[in-house]
Amino acid sequence: MSPLRIALLGFGTVGTSVVHRLTRTDAVRDLVLTGIFDRRADVKRLAHPALRGVAWTTRIEDVLVSDADVVVEAAGGLDPASGWIRDALLAGKSVVTANKQVIARDGEHLLRLAARQGRQLRFEAAIGGAMPIVRAVADGLAGDRLTRIVAILNGTTNAVLSRMDATRCSMDAAIRDAQSRGYAEQDPRLDLDGDDARAKLAILCGLAFGLRVTPTDIAARSAASVSLADVEGARRQGATIRQLAYASHDADTSTLTAWVSPVAVPRHSLFGRTTGPQNAALITGAHAGDIGVSGAGAGGDATAVAVISDLLAVARDRAAVVPPLALTTPKCIRGFGGIADFRVQISDCGFQISDSLFAEAV
Amino acid sequence: MSPLRIALLGFGTVGTSVVHRLTRTDAVRDLVLTGIFDRRADVKRLAHPALRGVAWTTRIEDVLVSDADVVVEAAGGLDPASGWIRDALLAGKSVVTANKQVIARDGEHLLRLAARQGRQLRFEAAIGGAMPIVRAVADGLAGDRLTRIVAILNGTTNAVLSRMDATRCSMDAAIRDAQSRGYAEQDPRLDLDGDDARAKLAILCGLAFGLRVTPTDIAARSAASVSLADVEGARRQGATIRQLAYASHDADTSTLTAWVSPVAVPRHSLFGRTTGPQNAALITGAHAGDIGVSGAGAGGDATAVAVISDLLAVARDRAAVVPPLALTTPKCIRGFGGIADFRVQISDCGFQISDSLFAEAV
Repeated sequence: MSPLRIALLGFGTVGTSVVHRLTRTDAVRDLVLTGIFDRRADVKRLAHPALRGVAWTTRIEDVLVSDADVVVEAAGGLDPASGWIRDALLAGKSVVTANKQVIARDGEHLLRLAARQGRQLRFEAAIGGAMPIVRAVADGLAGDRLTRIVAILNGTTNAVLSRMDATRCSMDAAIRDAQSRGYAEQDPRLDLDGDDARAKLAILCGLAFGLRVTPTDIAARSAASVSLADVEGARRQGATIRQLAYASHDADTSTLTAWVSPVAVPRHSLFGRTTGPQNAALITGAHAGDIGVSGAGAGGDATAVAVISDLLAVARDRAAVVPPLALTTPKCIRGFGGIADFRVQISDCGFQISDSLFAEAV
Repeated sequence: MSPLRIALLGFGTVGTSVVHRLTRTDAVRDLVLTGIFDRRADVKRLAHPALRGVAWTTRIEDVLVSDADVVVEAAGGLDPASGWIRDALLAGKSVVTANKQVIARDGEHLLRLAARQGRQLRFEAAIGGAMPIVRAVADGLAGDRLTRIVAILNGTTNAVLSRMDATRCSMDAAIRDAQSRGYAEQDPRLDLDGDDARAKLAILCGLAFGLRVTPTDIAARSAASVSLADVEGARRQGATIRQLAYASHDADTSTLTAWVSPVAVPRHSLFGRTTGPQNAALITGAHAGDIGVSGAGAGGDATAVAVISDLLAVARDRAAVVPPLALTTPKCIRGFGGIADFRVQISDCGFQISDSLFAEAV
């Protein structure tokens, strides 16, 4: 079998980690980096003389007409990234992406296009970093009827909130710390406000429940207003505050309950023990009960593991079928209902929101 | 696409749960149960009048010449089950099995045969019940270089040890409780002694490290001698006792360290929080760090989720490639070395074995 030829779109944090895994001494076998597209390719090429054999370009067209078998989209953002993925599929290439925004908005359409083209669109890296939650939900637990997902999906916010708890510092100080470690963007608002987690949760609703959900349909309460006093109040109750993403599906009434919010969780629970940029998820099925997954949710190296795993899946079976999502629109989407804020009751075995509207769901 | 035609070998605990999922009102679409082979098919057929449309047989030959696309092997035991799997592959059928003993001994050979036949051999149900650890290790984390697996792999032993801790009862009483709940066999020795966990760990060494390991190569210390006094001693240290399966791989020296033993773990750690028949695993990679998975590790319904997930993978892509294992034999396999027993030091963030031989490994 000839090696898989790979073109990379975007030489940023994730792209750099992917390049390292493909080119350094312990490079993954059967995967060959053949091209890099980046807006600043001219500058970056000079800074990376070791990547001489790679075709650098600032023109996406060069990638589309190249002999690459797979395009790794690590540019991020909705547009033009979504169009690039579409064009790569139309050009007969498989695509591996880390782009949750694109998959949340256009995944249904792009997966259908990929199936029509006989190519693969894989996106393990879009959710949970190295934590293999896309495969767990779409493949490993496909044999269950999933009813609920509760998860920490944003590594930046988790690093900030767990830092406040561990060092009793202010949120501003915790954000600066996360920035200095490379976990947080200059503007961490999309993370704290829940936009990032909403996009990931919307994708999971499609994979787990077969529901078509727009991220903005998901209720969100920002974690930006969590104060040190809140964190210390939770601590006195044996709890700590985490940004949780919650989705449960009642198939009989076609009702989705979905929200992202800071929530007080028991310190020793799966979520309370998730610190720094880690992610964690509790996936509940009608037949298997709760399945937990956790792992590094942010950072280039962790995300690159998911990208490389997807590339190896393509290399192993170039004709593999990635099933398009057969989605329906839920009749009803509920948000928080009567819940006033994140100061919720906690229980020893998980978390529990005091509002009766949600009592049955948690 | 025509539905996938399924023949079941063995109508025991797992087989019954699989049949329920395939035939009850909320049956999984595109999967059709067409045949059941069981030594006592004549008796069981009469007890299940609802399964009239299914071809019951006591002769394996009837299954091999039938029009089934996939054979689900849920008979258990090494022989003749292994021969049945081989014969089904030779007859052009894909195979889904829950049989860790067969995969541990013959998996390498059978996977090669399946690849040669252009058919699939899938075995998610062989390890961890519904916890999708086979996919996590072989697929989702394929993009990392895995270095260590620490896991609770035997639901029966975990139910017994956690019951002793929770109710301060004797091991005999805990075994009787597990038997009454259907978690433990009449003779739970294979579970407590570690034979079951060794078979599962041997399979994981193949998937994670590419190593050919015979279960009996793995050192084991029985949990059968754990006393209530041991459990209470651990409790006084903030710990509890669990049967852990441990494997770490030093690729530079081709050295595998592998053992199964009762170990004192912190009460609030991933393993300490794993109670009843749950399983859990911590998978460590050079690039992604620790990935945790947990879930129902025993019971027919949980195992059936894994079987159905494998069947759906076959149904989705009947030409899918399940890669044969490219295994090498480790130069050196280490067991416990100087560790005297399971009374080990514990640390807050995980577990730690006091012996210096293993200090670097944990």
